[in-house]
Amino acid sequence: MPRLKPRGEQAPSTRVDLGELTPELLPYLGFSARLQLLAFESLSSIVSGVSDLAVKAAVSEAAGAALVRHQGLAAEIRRRDDDPVEVMRPFAEPVERYGRVIRGEGWTEALLGAYVGFGLLDDFFIRLAEGLPGDFGPRAARLLALDSGEEAIAEVLRQAIAEDEPLASVLAMWGRRLVGDTLLLARSVLHHTGDHAEHEENIEPVLTELIAAHTRRMDALGLTA
Amino acid sequence: MPRLKPRGEQAPSTRVDLGELTPELLPYLGFSARLQLLAFESLSSIVSGVSDLAVKAAVSEAAGAALVRHQGLAAEIRRRDDDPVEVMRPFAEPVERYGRVIRGEGWTEALLGAYVGFGLLDDFFIRLAEGLPGDFGPRAARLLALDSGEEAIAEVLRQAIAEDEPLASVLAMWGRRLVGDTLLLARSVLHHTGDHAEHEENIEPVLTELIAAHTRRMDALGLTA
Repeated sequence: MPRLKPRGEQAPSTRVDLGELTPELLPYLGFSARLQLLAFESLSSIVSGVSDLAVKAAVSEAAGAALVRHQGLAAEIRRRDDDPVEVMRPFAEPVERYGRVIRGEGWTEALLGAYVGFGLLDDFFIRLAEGLPGDFGPRAARLLALDSGEEAIAEVLRQAIAEDEPLASVLAMWGRRLVGDTLLLARSVLHHTGDHAEHEENIEPVLTELIAAHTRRMDALGLTA
Repeated sequence: MPRLKPRGEQAPSTRVDLGELTPELLPYLGFSARLQLLAFESLSSIVSGVSDLAVKAAVSEAAGAALVRHQGLAAEIRRRDDDPVEVMRPFAEPVERYGRVIRGEGWTEALLGAYVGFGLLDDFFIRLAEGLPGDFGPRAARLLALDSGEEAIAEVLRQAIAEDEPLASVLAMWGRRLVGDTLLLARSVLHHTGDHAEHEENIEPVLTELIAAHTRRMDALGLTA
């Protein structure tokens, strides 16, 4: 159960962050491992679907980075003598459904889906890691902070937009839809990793931060968030 | 141009092997890099297509291994101050066509296609590496000899066959078709990496060895090659 630290332990600040929620370790690892596997699947589907070798190269690097994260999180599960397959299983359905939502139409929407969705969720899981017990938190955060190939993906998207100007407004609109669906999944993570319904108001400032990071990510493409 | 060493340099043996052909370095690297990218694409498509998390886990490891090889070969191309994308480009069409051929029906045929096809082609490219100039040969051979996740794939296939007995004869027949198509691609590699038409007879013993290794690979599944 995620729980707030007792008032007395809080830093003298009005800012409340996710680090004060203590997610359960195994659901955290299972959910994030399954999500990185989805990132790998989504990105590698794009690699297969495009014929442009330069796009294949950039996106396959990012797919490999997602696989490395997945494997690192699976190793953390094994370190606890648990089976990654079993620990991921409860999250198969929501994660797969999310994967279908962010797929969009054509490879540019799918790639924006991965860039926006997994970018935001990586930020979210890094914040959530602060509340993990033992040394799992720093290890999980370090793993998720590894280079995800995000900059190479941004470059591919910028080039696609440069070659097809109307694409900019289509992708800007798609980015707005994605952020809503991604925040829904982020909220559901909290429910899966414990019941925090009574702390709803504490999550809002974190979501605001995540949206600010999302805005910077869209800015990097020259798109309005 | 692959060429036989002058007679005098040959070992006193009737066995003639691919090491006596000197493939051109860049086409070798381009073809093998594109092929490992196809292996990554084929395996990761299977990961996306199955819902069984244990299968996803085993096959994604193998997909990651193919990506590591691809990246290693691309690094060798860059080490020669060439652009992997350009060096791979001439091989896009035959490699993509081969990928469509080995895909088969359903994930078990696709997985057997990857197991048989890339297994045989890895053997082939390792043999071909013996003829590469400089220290590229040993480096390329070492890269291709890295663990490919083949054993984990074999275990997944054995289990699928155990759970669905009629699958054995379907996959045995599919394996026989695959070997023909794969040998065709192997021959086309030689044509792409140089004109060796006059040395056709020298390749036969190597193909015989590759087929023996293929037979062992099918045996490992309990299937008749």
